Amino acid sequence: MPVNLSAPVAANLLPVAGVSLGTAEAGIKRAERKDLLVIKLDDGATVAGVFTTNRFCAAPVTLAKEHLAANRGIRALIVNTGNANAGTGEQGMQAARTTCAELAKLLGCAPEQVLPYSTGVIMEALPVEKIIAGMPQAISNLKADNWFDASQAIMTTDIVAKAVSKQVQINGATVTVTGMSKGSGMIHPNMATMLGYIATDATIAQPLLQQIVSEAANRSFNCITVDGDTSTNDALMLIATGKSGVTINESNRAAMQAVVTEVATLLAQAIVRDGEGATKFITIKIEGGKDEAECKQIGYAIAHSPLVKTAFFASDPNLGRILAAIGYAGVNDLDVEKLKLYLDDVLVAENGGRAASYQEEDGQRVMGQSDITIRVVLNRGAVNATLWTCDFSYDYVKINASYRS
Amino acid sequence: MPVNLSAPVAANLLPVAGVSLGTAEAGIKRAERKDLLVIKLDDGATVAGVFTTNRFCAAPVTLAKEHLAANRGIRALIVNTGNANAGTGEQGMQAARTTCAELAKLLGCAPEQVLPYSTGVIMEALPVEKIIAGMPQAISNLKADNWFDASQAIMTTDIVAKAVSKQVQINGATVTVTGMSKGSGMIHPNMATMLGYIATDATIAQPLLQQIVSEAANRSFNCITVDGDTSTNDALMLIATGKSGVTINESNRAAMQAVVTEVATLLAQAIVRDGEGATKFITIKIEGGKDEAECKQIGYAIAHSPLVKTAFFASDPNLGRILAAIGYAGVNDLDVEKLKLYLDDVLVAENGGRAASYQEEDGQRVMGQSDITIRVVLNRGAVNATLWTCDFSYDYVKINASYRS
Repeated sequence: MPVNLSAPVAANLLPVAGVSLGTAEAGIKRAERKDLLVIKLDDGATVAGVFTTNRFCAAPVTLAKEHLAANRGIRALIVNTGNANAGTGEQGMQAARTTCAELAKLLGCAPEQVLPYSTGVIMEALPVEKIIAGMPQAISNLKADNWFDASQAIMTTDIVAKAVSKQVQINGATVTVTGMSKGSGMIHPNMATMLGYIATDATIAQPLLQQIVSEAANRSFNCITVDGDTSTNDALMLIATGKSGVTINESNRAAMQAVVTEVATLLAQAIVRDGEGATKFITIKIEGGKDEAECKQIGYAIAHSPLVKTAFFASDPNLGRILAAIGYAGVNDLDVEKLKLYLDDVLVAENGGRAASYQEEDGQRVMGQSDITIRVVLNRGAVNATLWTCDFSYDYVKINASYRS
Repeated sequence: MPVNLSAPVAANLLPVAGVSLGTAEAGIKRAERKDLLVIKLDDGATVAGVFTTNRFCAAPVTLAKEHLAANRGIRALIVNTGNANAGTGEQGMQAARTTCAELAKLLGCAPEQVLPYSTGVIMEALPVEKIIAGMPQAISNLKADNWFDASQAIMTTDIVAKAVSKQVQINGATVTVTGMSKGSGMIHPNMATMLGYIATDATIAQPLLQQIVSEAANRSFNCITVDGDTSTNDALMLIATGKSGVTINESNRAAMQAVVTEVATLLAQAIVRDGEGATKFITIKIEGGKDEAECKQIGYAIAHSPLVKTAFFASDPNLGRILAAIGYAGVNDLDVEKLKLYLDDVLVAENGGRAASYQEEDGQRVMGQSDITIRVVLNRGAVNATLWTCDFSYDYVKINASYRS
């Protein structure tokens, strides 16, 4: 079950003027579930995004990047679940192109003004005819106040939907930011996560929008991991419709960046809290490093260690496993005598070994919690980094040993 | 249960003249199990080894390296299970020194002529008094024909003991090589694995012995992974007693290297076959790479992917997960259109997607086997690499969520 995470409440999700969303049951993999989403944008919206760095990136990722680069203005996004259209070669590219062309026809725009997204099983042909057949239903229920339904339509192994809204005052006016994400396994984003969509009614020129989404991704989706598997289909998109009348520029950029990063962080953390089989939400803070790269390197070594993750599942303060992970992280000049390891506020290790003050019952008490912070103070520089991950349970194996069935 | 791996048969393990082994029940962690091993060497033996690269390397690793460097000739090795003496700081170093000094007294040699090894739980103080108390029992049953008992005494979560003997004719005489290893989890060696000891009755000067053991480790223990966790205590030792009368030099080195590598490979594979919770033994062949580093990088990305490992546990040919792992392995100029993926002899993917000839039932048939080969032909160079790993099951989580209890 998700760790301290509830499904969003529909009434708390604020519409973003200029964005309407419609869903359909297209029967892509199973009948009677929402599996198709169309996001329609009013003319004049700007769109930016970050995508997976996986070399086997999916056909829709390749095509979305191509359409963004065409720079004709984006009018719609289409998302299907049940099939990732990844590892599908030239046939997969054709399927993605057909999807965009058919939706463009129905909406009266050019195919290059549509961005496609897919998530689901890899290396199976996209049933494009089912997607085309589902489009009229999705278009018929397009509305602005529809983020709750939309967040459900993009779920795969997610247990709960993930969506959040925030408002901020900029230049004396209210700016709204609403976002949603999906993802639960194959989570170790390297640009973004499985899928995330954030919209605002501010006016933001495309180059600045790209900077804001990249920075937000680096502080949020690029700081989480469930299982260390970087997906073929990761994408995080940021849409700015301009309907609030507030224009973002260098002078007020910081406020906009902050709220987008906050929304992205909540959506990214929600993915970890709903990580496949997760029973614990673990924050990993690496402090006093020489640079961000080494902080993340050590943090991810801890976050990816199956031995650390299973110890947390067992609520067993077998914390030497964390020391082992720090030791093999690949920071070759690391002086282990200098670092300190804390579990929440409990000092666990220093001077190369167990702290004299450390009592097993203190470690045990923290391990019993569902939200836990591992803090490693390296004492070799001034840079910090924070990552989020979850534990590794029987249910992770169960979910992933039976995902296709 | 171990995958196609039986315990060694005592009668098949050949003594190596000049090496005697004795075990004891020292009660280090639990009563009534062999947990202490003394290996005594006749005067004149040479010893070389490779050790973990983990920065949190255990006190005995540090001390063993120091004693080897002292170059006074090694007369004994001592191994305890139940406690790794890692993450134990200065106190741990003192415990390791005391262990060597006490054994040296009993055997009549210098402390620098003893090499210490520990394996078990990390960050707990070594019960050195129990080890000292157990020494007389181990010494009292020292004998050459004792590799079977010895291989049992070094087990931790291992289900079966691991030991093998080979003989080879060199310069018209018979040279014997006998080795043993232990390990099952925290297995992603980076120099060697948890613990491995190989002895031969050939005469081999120390510098050449070091080259032979390093080369053997690179082709065996450095090519396996169970869970991607590099231990704090890894060590692979090679002992040459010279009792066969055969001297190894550049002219006959190749034959010696081949047999040591063969023994090391069998011992390394045995660790994977006995990997915690393993139900499948998976050989990963990466062919046609530009260099060994990129071949191993792609191989380990596949081997460490929890999604790939759980699919193999489920015997589910969800083979797109292998493509995803290849894609995120970090070989940034990899052309995925050029590579071919095979499962045993079945061509699964080419031209960036599923092979036209691929039938799900062919994949399903191979996935049902307990020994499976994944072959990735990169078509970008002439270098190959082979790795060995296992799947990821409920039992892995069970074992590691309860190891300390």
